[in-house]
Amino acid sequence: MRRWNGWGEETTEVQLPAHGEAFLAERVGPGQVLVDASLEQVLAKVPHSRLVAHPLVSLDAETRLRHARGQSLPDWLAMRSGEFGQFPDGVAFPESAEQIRELLAWARQQNVLLIPYGGGTSVAGHINPQAGARPVLTLSLARMSRLIEIDEDSLIATFGPGANGPQVESQLRARGYTLGHFPQSWELSTLGGWVASRSSGQQSLRYGRIEQLFAGGALETFAGTLELPSFPASAAGPDLREMVMGSEGRFGIISEVKVRITPLAEQERFYSVFMPSWAQALQAIRTLVQARVPLSMLRLSNAIETETQLALAGHPRQIAWLEKYLALRGAGEGKCMLTFGVTGARAQNAASLKQARRLLKGFGGVFTGTLLGKKWAENRFRFPYLRHGLWAAGYAVDTLETATDWSNVDSLLNKIEASLRQGLAAEGERVHVFTHLSHVYGEGSSIYTTYVFRPGGSYEQALDRWQRLKQAASRTIAENRGTISHQHGVGRDHAPYLATEKGELGMAALQALAAHFDPERRLVPGVLLEE
Amino acid sequence: MRRWNGWGEETTEVQLPAHGEAFLAERVGPGQVLVDASLEQVLAKVPHSRLVAHPLVSLDAETRLRHARGQSLPDWLAMRSGEFGQFPDGVAFPESAEQIRELLAWARQQNVLLIPYGGGTSVAGHINPQAGARPVLTLSLARMSRLIEIDEDSLIATFGPGANGPQVESQLRARGYTLGHFPQSWELSTLGGWVASRSSGQQSLRYGRIEQLFAGGALETFAGTLELPSFPASAAGPDLREMVMGSEGRFGIISEVKVRITPLAEQERFYSVFMPSWAQALQAIRTLVQARVPLSMLRLSNAIETETQLALAGHPRQIAWLEKYLALRGAGEGKCMLTFGVTGARAQNAASLKQARRLLKGFGGVFTGTLLGKKWAENRFRFPYLRHGLWAAGYAVDTLETATDWSNVDSLLNKIEASLRQGLAAEGERVHVFTHLSHVYGEGSSIYTTYVFRPGGSYEQALDRWQRLKQAASRTIAENRGTISHQHGVGRDHAPYLATEKGELGMAALQALAAHFDPERRLVPGVLLEE
Repeated sequence: MRRWNGWGEETTEVQLPAHGEAFLAERVGPGQVLVDASLEQVLAKVPHSRLVAHPLVSLDAETRLRHARGQSLPDWLAMRSGEFGQFPDGVAFPESAEQIRELLAWARQQNVLLIPYGGGTSVAGHINPQAGARPVLTLSLARMSRLIEIDEDSLIATFGPGANGPQVESQLRARGYTLGHFPQSWELSTLGGWVASRSSGQQSLRYGRIEQLFAGGALETFAGTLELPSFPASAAGPDLREMVMGSEGRFGIISEVKVRITPLAEQERFYSVFMPSWAQALQAIRTLVQARVPLSMLRLSNAIETETQLALAGHPRQIAWLEKYLALRGAGEGKCMLTFGVTGARAQNAASLKQARRLLKGFGGVFTGTLLGKKWAENRFRFPYLRHGLWAAGYAVDTLETATDWSNVDSLLNKIEASLRQGLAAEGERVHVFTHLSHVYGEGSSIYTTYVFRPGGSYEQALDRWQRLKQAASRTIAENRGTISHQHGVGRDHAPYLATEKGELGMAALQALAAHFDPERRLVPGVLLEE
Repeated sequence: MRRWNGWGEETTEVQLPAHGEAFLAERVGPGQVLVDASLEQVLAKVPHSRLVAHPLVSLDAETRLRHARGQSLPDWLAMRSGEFGQFPDGVAFPESAEQIRELLAWARQQNVLLIPYGGGTSVAGHINPQAGARPVLTLSLARMSRLIEIDEDSLIATFGPGANGPQVESQLRARGYTLGHFPQSWELSTLGGWVASRSSGQQSLRYGRIEQLFAGGALETFAGTLELPSFPASAAGPDLREMVMGSEGRFGIISEVKVRITPLAEQERFYSVFMPSWAQALQAIRTLVQARVPLSMLRLSNAIETETQLALAGHPRQIAWLEKYLALRGAGEGKCMLTFGVTGARAQNAASLKQARRLLKGFGGVFTGTLLGKKWAENRFRFPYLRHGLWAAGYAVDTLETATDWSNVDSLLNKIEASLRQGLAAEGERVHVFTHLSHVYGEGSSIYTTYVFRPGGSYEQALDRWQRLKQAASRTIAENRGTISHQHGVGRDHAPYLATEKGELGMAALQALAAHFDPERRLVPGVLLEE
C-alpha cells in the first residue's frame, strides 16, 4: 500500500548504510531524530466535511488525509509531525470527461474550490488545500488511467489523464511502444500532472520534455471544453497546448492526453565515465550536446555529489578499488561522475557510443563501462525513498532545481550551493550540498542541487531551517538568470519568484487567461499566480 | 533593386522553357496573358496621407506603394493590375526599441492603426491596409537588422527583428555559425516575421522550426514591454514565447530576437532517390523519420510534381536519359522524386547516408547521387521567381500548405488536390495540381500543394478563380484534420478557418490576450482573429 506519510510503497525501504551515516555526521554533525505522528493521531484531527453528499465524492477522513499533501519537504514535515493544517473537504473520483464537467457545475453551484490531483507528487505545494470560507474539493484523476487509442501510423497514443508512469508504460509496452518519459517521480506521477506542470524525464535528451511529447487532448474549464487537436506542427497562431502546459490546474482540468510515442528500442545501454575535474567535465558535456551526438541520457555529478554517492552506495571495499583505479588513470581527487545512455538501433548506438567515448577521452574522461550505468538504471526511481533512510538517521534532505544558459551554469551553480551551504551559518549549523546536471540542451543545462541538514530539536525548527534555505536559494536563482523551475513547476512555493522571469506584463497576461477560463477563481487559487 | 510588383530582385529572371509551356498548354490550355500596370500608373493612384508629419515616418508615395502588399496571389493580381485598393498612410522606419515605443505612443495619440512589416513576404494578407476611418501606419523593421551579440558558450545570437535571411546568415557565418532557418522566402523574409508567423525552414529536420530556434527577446506592446529572457527549458508556467510566436503582430511589435545558433557544419550534401510509387515513397519517408535517422532535409514530390519538375527543368535530352535509366531500375511511370540532405561531421553524415540509402532501397528507391540534390540546393530560393515566368506565359500559380498526422496525410492530400483540380470545372477550366511533402515529423507531415490555372480574360476573373480555388481547398483542409497553416501563418486569408482548429473557447482566449496587450485594437485588426 502507498505510504500515507511519505514516498511510495510501504514495502520499499531504503536505508542509509552505516558508513553513510558516519560520512554525514562528519559533514553536518550527528543526526537528530524527531518523533513521527501515527495515522490514528492524524485521523482524529480531520474535521467534519463542509460538503453536501455527491455520488462522485468521498467524504471519508482517511481518503481526505491521503489527498491533503504532496511531497515537498514542508509536506513531509507536516505528515511526519501530524500537523497537516488543512484537509480537503472531499475527494472526487470522476471516471469520464462528462463526470468532470458535472463536478465543475456542482462546484459552481455549491460554491466550492477545486484542486485537480494526479499522483500527489508535487514538491512545490500545488495540491495543498488552504484555509478559507469556501469548502475545498480535491478532484483525483486516478480512475481515468486507461490507454484509449493508439494511432500506429502517427505514433500517437490517447490516454486518460490519470495514468501514472507504470500504467502509461505497461499499456504501451504491451503494444511495442514507449513514451520514454521518466521523471524521478515516475512511479506515482501522472500524465495529466506532467502536462500541467511541464515535466521533464531523465531521458529527455532522446524523447524530449513533455512539451515535445504532448500532442493534444482536452481541458475541461468553467468556460467550456478546450479541445486540442493533434497536428505534427502548425503556424496557425499561438499554440494553445503551450497555454495548457504549465497551467497547473489554474485554467481547467485535463481530461484527455494525446502523446507522441516511440517503438521500443532494439537496445539501451548506460555507461559511466569519470572526468578528472569539474571544469573539464562541464566543457565535455557542453561539447557533446552541442555536437548533437544522439545520446538518450546524460548526467554529470559534481565532485561533492560524486563523493557523496560513492560514500552512500554501500560496498566500500569495491568503491575503494574503483577509486584507486580511477586515480591511476588521472581521475583522482575532484573527479566527477558522468553517466550517459544510448537508446536505439544497435548500429546507431555503437556509433553514438564511439563518438561519445572519443570526445570524453579528449577531456580526460576515464571510461568504466556499463557497471555503474546499470546501477543507475536500477536505482533511477529510488532516490525519493532515500528521504526515509536519511530521516530515520536524523537528517532532512531536499532538492531544488533550475536551468540556465551554458555561459551561466557554473556561476549560478556555485551561487546556489553557496547560498545553501551558508544558509544556516547564523546558528552555527552546517549544510551538506551537492549538485548534478541531468537535463542538457544546446543552449544550457538544468542544475539539480540536493541539500542535507539537521532538523534541529523540533518540527518547527526544521521547517524554519528549510524556509530559510529555500528562500535563499530561490532568490539566488531568480536574481541570477535561472528559471525558478526547470521541472518541478511553480505551485505555491515558487509563485513569489515567478514575476522575475515572466515580467509584470507577462504575469498580467497569465492572470487575464486565468480570468477567462475561471472567472470565479475556483481552481487552485494561489497556485502559479499569487492571489 | 527590389521589384515593386512581384518577387525579389529585378535582375533575377526565371523563364519558363518552351517545352514547359507546351507541357502546361496540354494540361490546362494555352496561356492567357494579361497586361500589367506601370509603376507610374499606380503612383498616380496613391492618395494624400491622412497622417501628420513625424520624423520617423515617410509619407512618400512610392515608399507607401512599396509597403502596401505582400506576395499572395491576390497581392500579385493587385500589383499587376495596379488596383492596389488601400495604401498605408505612411511608413515608419524605427532604429531602436525606444523608437518603436515612441511610435506606439504617437499612434495612440494620433488615433492611428499599425501594421508591423518585416520583409513584406506574407502570402496570407498579413500586411495589407484595410479601408477605414483611422489612418494606417506601416512600421518597417528594416533598419533593425544588426547582429547585436553572440553568446558563444550558449550558442545564442541576439538580432534586431528586421534582419532578413541573408543578413542573418552573413553576420553569423562571419563568426562561424548558422541559424539554419531557410524558408523559401529566405531572401526577403525576416527574423521578426519568422517568429511572428511561426515559420519553418527547409532544413527544419535538423535545426527545428522557429519554435525551436526562438530563445527569447522582447515585444513592444500598448500595455508595455514584454521581456522574454532566454532559458534552455523551463517548467515555470505557460511559455510566453509561445504566445508571441504566431501572434502575427496582434499583441505587439517584436523589437529583439534571440536565436539558438549552430556552428557551421563540416559537410553538407543533398541526394536524390527516385521511388517507384507514391505508396512506397510515403511509407519510406515515414519510416525514415520515425527511425530518427539524422537527416537535415527531406522532400518528397508526388508523381505529378516529379513529372512537372522534370518537364520544367530544361535539358530535355538529359532528362530523357535519366528517365530511361530510372525505368530500367524499376522507377518508371508514377515515380516520385525524393531529395534528402545530411549536414554535420563527415563521419556522422556518412553513417546517416548509409542508413538512409539502405532503408530507401528496401522500399525500391533508386539512388541517383548528388547531381539533382545539388540542383535543388542551387535553386532552393528560386521557386517564387517562377511566378514571373509563368505569368509571362499566361498562367497563374499559387501554393497552399497544411500539416496533418501520418494516418491522414494521403487522404487529406488527395482531397486537397481533388478540390483544386475540380475547382473550376463548372466553367470548363482545368487546373494543374501537384504536391510535395517537405517538412516531416514523427507524428505527421506538411503537405505543400501547387496549382497552376489560367487567369481568364481579366484580373477580376483571375481573382474570382483564385478565390474559388482557395476557398475550396481551405475548407477541405479545415474539415479534414489539417491545420490551416503549417508555415505561412493565418493573416486575413486563413482567419475564417482558424476557429475550426482552435475551437470557440480557444479563439476567445486569444481574443482575451489581444485585448490585454492592445485594448484599443490598433495592431493589424482582422489579422489572425477576425473582427
